[in-house]
Order: sequence, then structure tokens, then C-alpha cells
Amino acid sequence: MFQQMSFKELMKVLGLGAVAFVLGVESLNWLTRRLRDSRGPLKEVLFFPSPQVCVEHLFTRHNHFPCACPLPHRIETSFSRLLKHLLSARLSLDLCVFSFSHMELSRAILLLHKRGVVVRVVTDRDYMTITGSQIGALRKAGICVRHEMSKAVHMHHKFALVDGRKLITGSLNWTLTAVQSNKENVMVTEEPELVRPYQQEFQKLWEANDPANHKPQSTNGEINR
Amino acid sequence: MFQQMSFKELMKVLGLGAVAFVLGVESLNWLTRRLRDSRGPLKEVLFFPSPQVCVEHLFTRHNHFPCACPLPHRIETSFSRLLKHLLSARLSLDLCVFSFSHMELSRAILLLHKRGVVVRVVTDRDYMTITGSQIGALRKAGICVRHEMSKAVHMHHKFALVDGRKLITGSLNWTLTAVQSNKENVMVTEEPELVRPYQQEFQKLWEANDPANHKPQSTNGEINR
Repeated sequence: MFQQMSFKELMKVLGLGAVAFVLGVESLNWLTRRLRDSRGPLKEVLFFPSPQVCVEHLFTRHNHFPCACPLPHRIETSFSRLLKHLLSARLSLDLCVFSFSHMELSRAILLLHKRGVVVRVVTDRDYMTITGSQIGALRKAGICVRHEMSKAVHMHHKFALVDGRKLITGSLNWTLTAVQSNKENVMVTEEPELVRPYQQEFQKLWEANDPANHKPQSTNGEINR
Repeated sequence: MFQQMSFKELMKVLGLGAVAFVLGVESLNWLTRRLRDSRGPLKEVLFFPSPQVCVEHLFTRHNHFPCACPLPHRIETSFSRLLKHLLSARLSLDLCVFSFSHMELSRAILLLHKRGVVVRVVTDRDYMTITGSQIGALRKAGICVRHEMSKAVHMHHKFALVDGRKLITGSLNWTLTAVQSNKENVMVTEEPELVRPYQQEFQKLWEANDPANHKPQSTNGEINR
């Protein structure tokens, strides 16, 4: 067919084909956008306890990593969804958590730090030193951790902000008991009206608990009066 | 002017006036609906600790109730907003809370029960008997309370559903320390995609912890094997 066509005709056909292709792709894009917009921003609710399954594949970029562990494989659970959301961070992770002793969640945070994601952690003063706490491991790796400065107050939040636009919040402390035994909830959302206040709260707590602003108490009676 | 008009003309003017009035009201309604729709369903975030203020006016239908207490009056706080949302219940309140010792929150629940609102509470087995727990007071008033049946598990949720369409959830236990001292968060939303899963979770927990389904353990070895 092409042999019988003049060069001009061939260019016309190719040109029309290209235009049709571009229009097709654009229409598809438009349709996808419309469908996504009609659903609105991400809103997901996870309930715990979560059954124990293998999550090794989430820690490697090679998705077909073979794992010989005895746990069930390739099963999606509330915990694997939570891990996936955390590991989706590309720029930053702001974490505000009362109690943090879960080994796999700690491994995820360390991995993000290693990947160059800017991780900031605010935690409770008392709970950061309990047995099994992962706060020491995070600090050792160079992650900046601040704790509630007041002795009389608990920093009881359990929320995280992924890249400043995905909020993960709920009743779940980052412990094995919370994940595997307790009745807990976690909400994941990109709804700006919900994300914004948590971002502001994180920044407020981050600044309020800056050790630079908390100088050792003076021995001068005047200040302590 | 009306004296110079014929009856027919007068009816025309009145008719046109009525049509204009109805159209005006309808347009206003349409505009209000459009404005509300553009903002989407209710989304509110409350942070704690909340300063102590007088909330007496929230417990009475007469909004100008005079109160002589020494606390600041007519100041809106995170706690007064939380109370307002709870007291807005007209039909039902489903509450799933780990620890409940806050006197004013207990008073709000008892008031709702007295008003005929159907209140259902699911709580933790261990924490419902600690000093100051309000669970006994609720049960005494005739409110149906169920607790986590398993001894090894904590019912760690802190959420409430008002009239099955408003979700109140976060890190806040219903205690005085949580409200007045701790760093806590509560989210209030009518977003159906978020409300629905919590409704289903409540129903699941309500049925799972029905005492009728938990008969005393048999002494027959076969059942316990």
C-alpha cells in the first residue's frame, strides 16, 4: 500500500496517525483524571490486629525478591498497607508517636533515612527509654528525634506525614502488641483540609521541643520563682 | 395606590410578588447548597491539651444559662467543640473507647441517654474497672456497655459515631489527663468514605463482644481441646 502512495500522501497519513494517537492518549489522561477527581483525595481506613505475613518484598526495590521464611507470602494486610504508605515517602517523613518499639516499622524508617528521605521524629519523654524502644536506634543512625520537654505531659499523638501531603493517624502506637493483638484503627488520607492542621501541629511541636530553646535550669532563684 | 387598582390588577401584583418571593427563597437555598457542597462534608481537627473553661451552657437547652463558677465563660476550646459534637446526637451514639474517666464527658453521655438517644458503648476489659472509670455510672443509668471479651487483647480504639453519620476519632482517651495535659488529636468528619468503615467496625465489635455469644467455658474437655 505504502509503495503506491506519494511521499506527500504518506506524510499526511503518518501525521493524521500521530494526531489521532496524541488525541487518544490525551483523552485517556483526561478520563483518568476525571475518574480520580470524582473519587476525591485518598481516604483509606485500616483496622488492627493485623495477621502476621511476610513483608520482606516491601523492603526491596526488586519486587520479585524470593523469601524462604515460613510466614504467608504476598498477602495484603492492614500492616502491609501501613508499611507501603510509609515506604512511599520520597522527600520527607514527619513522625509524631507516643510509643515506638516495632522492629519492622523501625527498619522502614531507617531505610527511608538511608534513601535520603528527611525524617523528623517527635516522641514521648518517658516512653522513648522503655525496654525495646527503637528511638535509640533511630538516633544512632543519625535521624533527628525530639521528645516532649515537659515532665508532666505525655506526647500521646500517633500520626505521620508522608511528603507533607499524606496523613497517617489513629489509635495505633508503633508496637508489636498494637499491630498484632489490639483493636486499633489507622486512617490514611490526602484530604488537604485534614492534612494541613496536622502539619501545623507537627511544626509547632517540633519547634516547641527544640533542645536549643530549653536551656538547663538556672541556679538563680529568680528564674525558678 | 391599591384603591386605584382593580381587583384583577391587585391579584396580578400579589401573584407576581409571591412568585418573586418563592424564586428568591429558592435561589438562596440553591446558593447555600452550592456553597456547602463546594466545601464538602464536615472536616474538623481538634488538638489538645484544651484550656479549662466553663461548659455549663452546653448542658442546658437555655443558651443564656447564667453560671457563677470561677472558670472563663463563653470561650470555645477543643474540649467544648468535642462536647458540642457529642451533644449534637439526636438518634444514636456509638462509642468505642479504651479508657473513660472524664466526668463531663460521662455527664454528656448520661444526658444523651436521658434525652432518648440510643447509646452503645464498647470498652476495654481491664481499663473499665480502674479507679475513676465512668463505665459503672453508665451501666447504672441503663446504658448498654460491652467490653472486649479476650483477656489478652486491648480494645484501644477511641472513636464515636454520632447519629451514624458523624465520626469523632483520634488519640484522645476520655480522661482528664488526656483532655487537660497531653498532646492529643481528635478528628471530626462526616465524610461517608471515612464514616462507613468505622460504623462497620463498631458493629463487628458490638456483635463479637455480645455476652450471649460468650457462654461460660465448659468443663467438658472436648470443647477446650
